[in-house]
Amino acid sequence: MSDFSMVELIERKRDGDVLSADELRWIIEQDTADRIPDYQMSSLLMAIVLNGMTAAELGPWTEAMLHSGDVVHLDHVAAPKVDKHSTGGVGDKASIPLAPLVAACGVAVPMMSGRGLGHTGGTLDKLETIPGFRTALDPTEFVSIVERHGMVLAGQSETMVPADRRIYALRDASGTVPSIDLISSSIMSKKLAEGLDALVLDVKVGSGAFMKEAEQATVLAETMVRIGASHDTEVVALLTDMDQPLGRAVGNANEVVESIEVLRGNGPADLVEITLRLGEEMLLVGGVVADRAEARKRLELAIDSGAALDKFREVVAAQDGDPSVVDDTSLLPQADHRQELVAARNGFVTHLDALAVGVAAVRLGAGRRTKADVIDPAVGFELVAKRGDSVEVGDPLVRVAYTSEAQLNSAIDVLTSAWVIGDEAPGEIPLVLGEVR
Amino acid sequence: MSDFSMVELIERKRDGDVLSADELRWIIEQDTADRIPDYQMSSLLMAIVLNGMTAAELGPWTEAMLHSGDVVHLDHVAAPKVDKHSTGGVGDKASIPLAPLVAACGVAVPMMSGRGLGHTGGTLDKLETIPGFRTALDPTEFVSIVERHGMVLAGQSETMVPADRRIYALRDASGTVPSIDLISSSIMSKKLAEGLDALVLDVKVGSGAFMKEAEQATVLAETMVRIGASHDTEVVALLTDMDQPLGRAVGNANEVVESIEVLRGNGPADLVEITLRLGEEMLLVGGVVADRAEARKRLELAIDSGAALDKFREVVAAQDGDPSVVDDTSLLPQADHRQELVAARNGFVTHLDALAVGVAAVRLGAGRRTKADVIDPAVGFELVAKRGDSVEVGDPLVRVAYTSEAQLNSAIDVLTSAWVIGDEAPGEIPLVLGEVR
Repeated sequence: MSDFSMVELIERKRDGDVLSADELRWIIEQDTADRIPDYQMSSLLMAIVLNGMTAAELGPWTEAMLHSGDVVHLDHVAAPKVDKHSTGGVGDKASIPLAPLVAACGVAVPMMSGRGLGHTGGTLDKLETIPGFRTALDPTEFVSIVERHGMVLAGQSETMVPADRRIYALRDASGTVPSIDLISSSIMSKKLAEGLDALVLDVKVGSGAFMKEAEQATVLAETMVRIGASHDTEVVALLTDMDQPLGRAVGNANEVVESIEVLRGNGPADLVEITLRLGEEMLLVGGVVADRAEARKRLELAIDSGAALDKFREVVAAQDGDPSVVDDTSLLPQADHRQELVAARNGFVTHLDALAVGVAAVRLGAGRRTKADVIDPAVGFELVAKRGDSVEVGDPLVRVAYTSEAQLNSAIDVLTSAWVIGDEAPGEIPLVLGEVR
Repeated sequence: MSDFSMVELIERKRDGDVLSADELRWIIEQDTADRIPDYQMSSLLMAIVLNGMTAAELGPWTEAMLHSGDVVHLDHVAAPKVDKHSTGGVGDKASIPLAPLVAACGVAVPMMSGRGLGHTGGTLDKLETIPGFRTALDPTEFVSIVERHGMVLAGQSETMVPADRRIYALRDASGTVPSIDLISSSIMSKKLAEGLDALVLDVKVGSGAFMKEAEQATVLAETMVRIGASHDTEVVALLTDMDQPLGRAVGNANEVVESIEVLRGNGPADLVEITLRLGEEMLLVGGVVADRAEARKRLELAIDSGAALDKFREVVAAQDGDPSVVDDTSLLPQADHRQELVAARNGFVTHLDALAVGVAAVRLGAGRRTKADVIDPAVGFELVAKRGDSVEVGDPLVRVAYTSEAQLNSAIDVLTSAWVIGDEAPGEIPLVLGEVR
């Protein structure tokens, strides 16, 4: 491969030029090999944040990132391979019931998830509250669990997409995070390295999401769908509401309990609906059903028959977790103390702010401020009153499971402002705000 | 001083916010103390290149830079202290005759200059062709030469404006050079650290200058004048033509010869005129004359009387140079070989491209590609035909003094394209294109 001058490439990006596929590939390859100083990468990243990248640039840039390390090969698995990715929210545990539900319907789900940071929770943290459950799998294990069980719930191996890890750390430290192009290429490089046939995206919109407005979220979704197309991978994105948390449980162990409830057919309506809508899309892009109605029927049957719950029990065991948890959730970590927050007036919950709940969860110990923080698996919230519910003075709004009094008080400081109670019932916000395909 | 989060400050600059004086001062202080990683400074610099800085930001930013190291104190010198700075061009040796000329008229000139890089030459490189001449002076020497001789011609001490040195090196390596705000603060921090009462700027415009268009050059001049005002220092800028080189000599030793010719009253018309115009401004802002006419008379008298040449001889000796050079320029380095380039047709020189001549000079060995390059003091060009001159086939356009055949050929490759000969005499371009005060 020819050699370029990094300073010249930075200057061209700075001046609004479009870089060629060869040039973009060269940057990623050189950076991954530690041959580009961080101060050059960070000035390039700032130029990208401010000047953007074209679709023609994002394809090769993402492709180079996804090939910067090991790539999962699942061609020998006959079933269609489909994953789902959420851009992160509060109380969003949909991945956990979704993967076994879809796998029970004949679509393989080689799912790689992340950890929580800031006000958004992480699937790995939740799964690891199951005693023994291992999310750090080596590539051979990862593939063999997919082969045997049609799904896996793991973290990303250190040997995959090193380019993204380097760039992400640098963006975090150099003020270059909020770029739809950089966010899209980061997500898509990781997902496309899983050896997928298709991908369903859950792009969250609202106070608890990275994207506060539907307009931005749509651009993000479109950008990721386009990157998928340039990789010949079908990508479908649903834009879903994250103005209030999803479901009633926010924490870690309690979110696993709620996920199991979905698989038992007893989940909260919003979480069940989002899970089924995402599941429909996964069966559709996986090509195992003819239409949405058939997809819905198959998914409901997998719940009613217990096949989805069986699949989850099977995978928990395959990843060294205690499968009896699935039938007795009291085996999961439980906090010693409970406290209720109650309504101060009669009325309707007109707003339940996902961001405030997420921040309170971090303060309670359920989330991380920095990557080095250790989370408490047992603490969390049960959101008793959600948007649209009518409450009377003294009715519980939330039940807090806590370990330390100091964490409780710090959490309550922000939690109390999360509920707005008014005289009129609020208008309904649809769960699915839009779709991009 | 309070502590700020560098990532937050970068984010705010990225998002178009205005940083406070305290925040800007903190950045410069922390960076000078090596407490900010280069990858954060470079992403901040890229945000500044793309989003700019306001006048309210540039003042404290420049002030913090100029105070990042030693500052020259010349308050005890009774004469007004005035320096001149040029933004760099080809054949621009005006500093060399100007400083003794102005000093001979009673204005102290504590001049700090730079080295050549790329197609623009540097005053220090030229002065150092005088056998023994030392430009590296410690601060005590610098001040004492000004005290005794009313002028000095030195490089900047390593202990001065370290913030600029750090930032400049990083800009060079991170694609963040072309920002009028960063260029202005770099120049002004160095100049204001010289302890000046006033400053005259020569902002070059044209192919051989950093600013190709008068519009950009005007913005640069206005920005520097504003920074001067915020430091309570009068700054006057002349915009002058650098579409063709200044004078007839381009090189190093030969530019000293031409400078001495100006002091003898025999300089080429354009160089003499620029020197006198800049001199007028220096005497005016120095407050030693009532008006431009008086200034012109004083300057012409200093040349005619030999006072300016005497002052130069005196300073050469004070800085350990061989003063007999001033009266016998054959003592300066001379190249062994000469070659002429001649006109291929009859007509008028309609264009003489300063950039091409500057690039050819680097190839000849008279300039540096990188800071580590060593220059050959003896080589250079004598531009025989300049813009507007009429030439006939076979008339010399340029005489090249060279050391190596390879360098000669490489220089001629670009040099031949520097002259454009047409049928009609070109319109005149004024030497001084504008002024900002």
